[in-house]
Amino acid sequence: MFVSNKKDIAKRLKGNPIITPADVCPTRDDFEVIGAFNAAAFRYKGKIGLLMRIAERPIQQADFVSIPIVDRTSGNYKIKRFRKNDPNLDMSDPRVITYKNDLYLTSVSHLRLAWSDDGINFTIDKQPAIWPSGEYEIYGVEDPRVTKIGKRFYITYSAVSDAEVAVAMSYTEDWQRFTRCGLVLHPFNKDVCLFPNKSRGKYYMLHRPSGVLWKRNWIWLSCSDDLMYWGKPVCLAKTRADKFDSARIGAGAPPIVTEDGFLEIYHGADNNHRYCLGAMILDRNNPSKILYRSDKPIMQPIASYERKGFFGNVVFTDGAIVRDEEIWIYYGASDTMTCLATMPISAIKQC
Amino acid sequence: MFVSNKKDIAKRLKGNPIITPADVCPTRDDFEVIGAFNAAAFRYKGKIGLLMRIAERPIQQADFVSIPIVDRTSGNYKIKRFRKNDPNLDMSDPRVITYKNDLYLTSVSHLRLAWSDDGINFTIDKQPAIWPSGEYEIYGVEDPRVTKIGKRFYITYSAVSDAEVAVAMSYTEDWQRFTRCGLVLHPFNKDVCLFPNKSRGKYYMLHRPSGVLWKRNWIWLSCSDDLMYWGKPVCLAKTRADKFDSARIGAGAPPIVTEDGFLEIYHGADNNHRYCLGAMILDRNNPSKILYRSDKPIMQPIASYERKGFFGNVVFTDGAIVRDEEIWIYYGASDTMTCLATMPISAIKQC
Repeated sequence: MFVSNKKDIAKRLKGNPIITPADVCPTRDDFEVIGAFNAAAFRYKGKIGLLMRIAERPIQQADFVSIPIVDRTSGNYKIKRFRKNDPNLDMSDPRVITYKNDLYLTSVSHLRLAWSDDGINFTIDKQPAIWPSGEYEIYGVEDPRVTKIGKRFYITYSAVSDAEVAVAMSYTEDWQRFTRCGLVLHPFNKDVCLFPNKSRGKYYMLHRPSGVLWKRNWIWLSCSDDLMYWGKPVCLAKTRADKFDSARIGAGAPPIVTEDGFLEIYHGADNNHRYCLGAMILDRNNPSKILYRSDKPIMQPIASYERKGFFGNVVFTDGAIVRDEEIWIYYGASDTMTCLATMPISAIKQC
Repeated sequence: MFVSNKKDIAKRLKGNPIITPADVCPTRDDFEVIGAFNAAAFRYKGKIGLLMRIAERPIQQADFVSIPIVDRTSGNYKIKRFRKNDPNLDMSDPRVITYKNDLYLTSVSHLRLAWSDDGINFTIDKQPAIWPSGEYEIYGVEDPRVTKIGKRFYITYSAVSDAEVAVAMSYTEDWQRFTRCGLVLHPFNKDVCLFPNKSRGKYYMLHRPSGVLWKRNWIWLSCSDDLMYWGKPVCLAKTRADKFDSARIGAGAPPIVTEDGFLEIYHGADNNHRYCLGAMILDRNNPSKILYRSDKPIMQPIASYERKGFFGNVVFTDGAIVRDEEIWIYYGASDTMTCLATMPISAIKQC
């Protein structure tokens, strides 16, 4: 069911991808889904749930590029059209267009649930679970992570607007009713993962601010008494020159409790925007202490579906689940589809 | 004592500047002070105190540029020298140099006190009050603001390092012993001002994150129960195209309680890096509500000492004091020296 390769320790599901854009219905007939990826993963009532990022856009017409924006008041799409031959239009990055001094995303994402008994075959909801709302989400909600704390599943996700990328939080107990907490971090932040339990009496989160002077994309750690107010930030991990994570790093799956400490599977990219997965183990009593960090990636974009797609050469995880000493990593491939790979937890420390 | 001009409502002190770099002794004989500016202002025991940003650097030698870095462990200066004719060196901005892919500041700042009976003639301490410390301040501490809350004077300031610009906090009751609180905001943030009292049971701060995608430099508002953990961020104020504050805005002096609400004197810059002062009045019961914002600057760089200096065309305030219905604005001119201007509080709303 899973196949190995010589280049990394990940065993990929033979049937990858497990979810593609074609499997997902758009929210409007005149729209197309172009991405079903970067899914949070969790267990609920004997099932495995994924909360996916679904990227959609208007079905494109010749000579024009049409981009969606969510109206902050009504929550409905507004569509902006640009002539492709307009000299003020820059479409060199598939994810964004720039028009004069304005920047827009080429698609808008919402969050949608999928459910499975075996962790491989998923039934995808027809309706969004979390839809962009208000002024900080007009360009969409992206890249959710789910952490269960007590009875609640906390969902942290990127809130994208012309006020930059911030981090919003919602929680649910039953995956039907969601309570919005608003922004928990101001811009520029993304890749927020909450820890599943307290250390030294505090809640912790990993987050990834970006800097405008030194262009740093490093992982920071902040703590909280109540999950709403965050403080005491420390820089946890930096990029490493000449390694797979030389240009940018960010938390991936929420930290997993293991015998050795909190296992954090993170993403690292180089200057060619090649996204790999790495691993860190953090001290359970002091998460600011890195006990181990993989020298080489635990997973690289190798398979054809990881190398080619909407934005190729990307493996990116938002969620992983432990099953029988193995870790099942749900990951986005090429910013397009959802895939699955496994590896023994014990093997991770050999990278 | 104060002179008016036709261009803005500020009346400048005839004797400006009140403090220049030549008035300040460097911390080492082989160093020179190049900036004494951007001072927090406060009252203490019948005196007016300024907590200034003092920028110093090694006395420069021909053919070389020497830049200081504070060692994170010892707290002592290390000096880095570059040949001026090295083709890898870029010195086009006086504030920074870039060498290959590395960025350094050309000076390091610490914070130093000055005291006055009349608010005009100041005696400057020989020793720093707050010296860069630890890994987040190796390139210095900058642009302090002081807010008295209860018995304590809280000092918020930029902590500059290769991990970008974050915000640190210290407090003191007697201006002799300082308690360090560490970072209160992760990068990229600066221009933090605490409000002098609570609204709706919460403490508030203004801060200025910067974004890497839309390049926003907007003022945000966050709140706290304890001044250490901050949350519920909202975007308070944006730049305005075709106005003096079209490119970047940031809080200036900590908000001042007036009859109309919290008076915030902020800085606004355009794309030519021309820094002016503007004013906002915020609802006392809901500081996220702007009741008034000046259409034109309340103060522009007009005087020769505001137009020429280390970094010209800048007026920038970190502190103001109310005296007899007038507001005394201490401000940095040209990133070089400390000046004073006054205006009637009642006149501010006419801009």
